[in-house]
Amino acid sequence: MFVGMGLNDEQGISLRGLELASKADLVICECYTSLMPRLSLESLQTRIRKPVKVLSRKQLEDYVDEFVVEQAKKKMVVLLVPGDPMIATTHISVRIRAEKQGIRTRVVHGASIVTAVMGLSGLQNYKFGKSVTVPFPKGEVVSDVPYQVIAENRMRGLHTLVFLDVRAEEGRYMTIRDALAILSSLESLKSLGVVTAETLTIGVARAGADDPLVRAGPVREILNFDFGGPPHTLVFPGRLHFVEAEALEVLGGAAKSALKGYAE
Amino acid sequence: MFVGMGLNDEQGISLRGLELASKADLVICECYTSLMPRLSLESLQTRIRKPVKVLSRKQLEDYVDEFVVEQAKKKMVVLLVPGDPMIATTHISVRIRAEKQGIRTRVVHGASIVTAVMGLSGLQNYKFGKSVTVPFPKGEVVSDVPYQVIAENRMRGLHTLVFLDVRAEEGRYMTIRDALAILSSLESLKSLGVVTAETLTIGVARAGADDPLVRAGPVREILNFDFGGPPHTLVFPGRLHFVEAEALEVLGGAAKSALKGYAE
Repeated sequence: MFVGMGLNDEQGISLRGLELASKADLVICECYTSLMPRLSLESLQTRIRKPVKVLSRKQLEDYVDEFVVEQAKKKMVVLLVPGDPMIATTHISVRIRAEKQGIRTRVVHGASIVTAVMGLSGLQNYKFGKSVTVPFPKGEVVSDVPYQVIAENRMRGLHTLVFLDVRAEEGRYMTIRDALAILSSLESLKSLGVVTAETLTIGVARAGADDPLVRAGPVREILNFDFGGPPHTLVFPGRLHFVEAEALEVLGGAAKSALKGYAE
Repeated sequence: MFVGMGLNDEQGISLRGLELASKADLVICECYTSLMPRLSLESLQTRIRKPVKVLSRKQLEDYVDEFVVEQAKKKMVVLLVPGDPMIATTHISVRIRAEKQGIRTRVVHGASIVTAVMGLSGLQNYKFGKSVTVPFPKGEVVSDVPYQVIAENRMRGLHTLVFLDVRAEEGRYMTIRDALAILSSLESLKSLGVVTAETLTIGVARAGADDPLVRAGPVREILNFDFGGPPHTLVFPGRLHFVEAEALEVLGGAAKSALKGYAE
């Protein structure tokens, strides 16, 4: 059974998820596919009233039969996962693997960073196009995929949800500042003018925490804004309905001038 | 404060949401923007240990100052909302209205039908394009918007999440069968061949419930499949990665032949 832990800390899990974890024979957990900086394993174990075994990326990806699938043949296993469980490809693969071996799986959903960021940005969920992740550059090589996705969505008037690379096991995460610097540095694409100093963007920090921060404005302004701790996410708006524009002003502190040219 | 109730019933709320609702001076709830067919108000009240006032669409949309905003000036108000709170436009508007009057708002996220359906379908979240809703036809007029959105996404190789119209207050909801019949009936668009009897589609019923049902196959097959009770949702795949194709076979019961022509 896959149970989503939702956002931020051990209080993000649903009542249904907590109840099923309490009834399980074995509770395992992975915390590397997404950042839950305030998750307390101790408090989680107290609530579930049993030990929780934390799996590494290697254990879940290379030794999944030993640590998960074989266990689930003999007893009721709950795998706790950050956010909503089937968003990371890893978990879909584990699920397929288990089902193929005749194990009936089940999913208990949790709040996801995907809808949390869409909602906090004040933009309308159905107007988001394809989403994308900005990866850490490999040496000198900077991926132009995020740039292309933003451009394609904008041509259709759609918003882009931009995830920033996280290496939770190394305690390393990309900040909004890092990401905007990367997106502005692609000399070869500058002529397209998709991400310039004046492009409207929305920084969302700590979605799901008690102290989330949303700030909308031109790239040059957001680049220098201090968003505090992780996780960080970005949204590049396409065309704005007047309620969306108002949300960016009231909830994101955007100046009216920054929204010019984005009206629907 | 906006608190997401997550999916299916009163057990979908997070521990954080439950705790805050328990501390609130006034707890109100709306159940019309999304279908939670198994929500028990009684059980919800028992868990929160206080009465929950249910608002109608009219009260939340036309008399929001009286029923929500004015109350929140004097005391701590929690508005319980199906799914993740800021997905429906109504709640974004209420939030903007409150903030403009100097009331500090907060959002406690919940599991959403958006990521639940994406995850259950076995398709990868970042490959979904714009989503769309199939509305009930108005007399003879059938909207061609869903058809156009599916076509545009598919041209880019992207999947489309298709919500089906719900009129929770009338107890009326569109089934997968209704929606496929509507999408197949657009004579004027048939030449485009976007939704034909052979088009691959995925029906997802009761995402978030204990008995969700996922079935993938050609429209002619899914149209005649009995999905049982609501809520119903559809996904139209774009191009499939081999893990996605495997998921549709193993988790959605699709025949290999139905997946032909969709490989990435």
